[in-house]
Amino acid sequence: MNFNFKKDIKAVVSVIGASDIDKEIEKKTIEIGRLLAINNYAVACGGLSGVMEAICKGVKEKGGITIGIIPFTEKKRANKYIDIVIPCPFSQARNVVVVLAGDICLAIGGKAGTLSEISFAWIYDKPLVALTSVPGWSSSIANQAIDDRRSDMIYGVETPLEVIDDKIKLY
Amino acid sequence: MNFNFKKDIKAVVSVIGASDIDKEIEKKTIEIGRLLAINNYAVACGGLSGVMEAICKGVKEKGGITIGIIPFTEKKRANKYIDIVIPCPFSQARNVVVVLAGDICLAIGGKAGTLSEISFAWIYDKPLVALTSVPGWSSSIANQAIDDRRSDMIYGVETPLEVIDDKIKLY
Amino acid sequence: MNFNFKKDIKAVVSVIGASDIDKEIEKKTIEIGRLLAINNYAVACGGLSGVMEAICKGVKEKGGITIGIIPFTEKKRANKYIDIVIPCPFSQARNVVVVLAGDICLAIGGKAGTLSEISFAWIYDKPLVALTSVPGWSSSIANQAIDDRRSDMIYGVETPLEVIDDKIKLY
Amino acid sequence: MNFNFKKDIKAVVSVIGASDIDKEIEKKTIEIGRLLAINNYAVACGGLSGVMEAICKGVKEKGGITIGIIPFTEKKRANKYIDIVIPCPFSQARNVVVVLAGDICLAIGGKAGTLSEISFAWIYDKPLVALTSVPGWSSSIANQAIDDRRSDMIYGVETPLEVIDDKIKLY
Repeated sequence: MNFNFKKDIKAVVSVIGASDIDKEIEKKTIEIGRLLAINNYAVACGGLSGVMEAICKGVKEKGGITIGIIPFTEKKRANKYIDIVIPCPFSQARNVVVVLAGDICLAIGGKAGTLSEISFAWIYDKPLVALTSVPGWSSSIANQAIDDRRSDMIYGVETPLEVIDDKIKLY
Repeated sequence: MNFNFKKDIKAVVSVIGASDIDKEIEKKTIEIGRLLAINNYAVACGGLSGVMEAICKGVKEKGGITIGIIPFTEKKRANKYIDIVIPCPFSQARNVVVVLAGDICLAIGGKAGTLSEISFAWIYDKPLVALTSVPGWSSSIANQAIDDRRSDMIYGVETPLEVIDDKIKLY
Repeated sequence: MNFNFKKDIKAVVSVIGASDIDKEIEKKTIEIGRLLAINNYAVACGGLSGVMEAICKGVKEKGGITIGIIPFTEKKRANKYIDIVIPCPFSQARNVVVVLAGDICLAIGGKAGTLSEISFAWIYDKPLVALTSVPGWSSSIANQAIDDRRSDMIYGVETPLEVIDDKIKLY
Repeated sequence: MNFNFKKDIKAVVSVIGASDIDKEIEKKTIEIGRLLAINNYAVACGGLSGVMEAICKGVKEKGGITIGIIPFTEKKRANKYIDIVIPCPFSQARNVVVVLAGDICLAIGGKAGTLSEISFAWIYDKPLVALTSVPGWSSSIANQAIDDRRSDMIYGVETPLEVIDDKIKLY
């Protein structure tokens, strides 16, 4: 093989969202995964179900790279679309690593765990993109600042295609 | 000495809030610290400045117990009102330990770090009390649910005295 | 109450060792716990069974203070002799916090987990005392240096009383 | 691109060792890196200097894949041969993640940090291979068991080529 990550991949996108999602969020998330892979972004996520599984499914359909940071010791507990499994058996503290593994952070819906990740992405100064067309914290908090330490905002986008366009602008 | 924690202490309250605060928040926080100690609650916090220092100042004025979970390896970096220093050099992941050290969680103002702690307290099923009379995440998020996993809310209170009354009701 | 930790307590001793031990190690460990409390040392440990439970039993017999850093989210999983429970649900990474919570580290027997804690105490520059009269890593590694970063050694002691005498010399 | 990790990669090898090494260890480590890549193993490591840099240099010479789990928040602090950077800003607790990222663990020399990683690999039931022809913990502890929880040993090997042969036997 001849793997050249730095040449082939533009950036790693940390994708965060809930572990149980409905069909509509799943469909949109898979589509975002496809677009990310086609545009040469790798994806990092929590490696389990819901948004994490849907995004990786989309990425792998297009031959992209997926990194799953799971809160267990056993690698086999990652979803089947994960290429590189990083066991981080630290309960919610694994959320810190999920965020830091990316160069950009994309929120799709999400509950309390996602809200903690949005907070960390803000603190660690990662560009933040949030999908506004699905319910959950990504739409509640889009187009807002979490606090006064940064002069930018969480950038709200409505469609999968916009995610890519805006991310490229941000990064 | 004869230390009997289980007999003397009703519960440990994790107090979360910003590391830089104005005089008004400081004054209210010190007063809450005094009331917690008088009512036999121990306090856990992040062990540094701002709300963390003010709450411990109040607690120690009344001879209470303070636990500081700091994000550094050296114990001496805790504020001077901390009795028991727990170094947790895990960057923002130390927030998980701050929340879990308490039986109840009290938010006073706060920025992105506090928002992550509120999220964790919600996930770990800790009763949550938030001071509404100061700016920051404690007032923005009071009287709301973070997501649908719990049937209760973040309980908003306006005055230091109410904190104690409501906490006793919750716990 | 009137709790004055800084005045009443000379230092915190992190005690490390196996979670399953025989009667002889248990007896010696309880005796060390009593001596530590009588001499105004607080004890930090992993908060579970074996050496962790025996040391705390001894400490509490003499009215001392115990801190238990457990690898679970629920405080109730600490042994019954723990005063202050710090949940640190980070699998083996909690060992870092166990070591850092002390000003000195005392090893009693021990398996692989204890060996990781000895390594960390060495790295974090904690004075290390190891009981040589029981089997396990504390006797295998006593009177040795782990590597060349420090000019001292892991200080081997044979009896509970010697632990106290030597620790006072070290700290 | 068309990245198929599960098909292309046999296993991930966590390589552990000191951050400052002499020319002889460096040369052997680079050679092991080349052999691992040629034989379709990916490498995980701590992502910094010394053994971590040498192993990745060898891997990248042959177009292989490297994963670096660094103890900082900023990705740019990884050595230049790392493809996938996982920031794990948890001080020595990052060692847990380094070990768990691999399916097998290979120790080359090493000091106290490496000893903690050997302990964790033992606890997490990873096959352990240790290079005996260089000084440090890998040779001190080779062909021994850390404790009685496993029936196998840390498997000592003398040459880079043996590492590959033995690892294939183990995994």
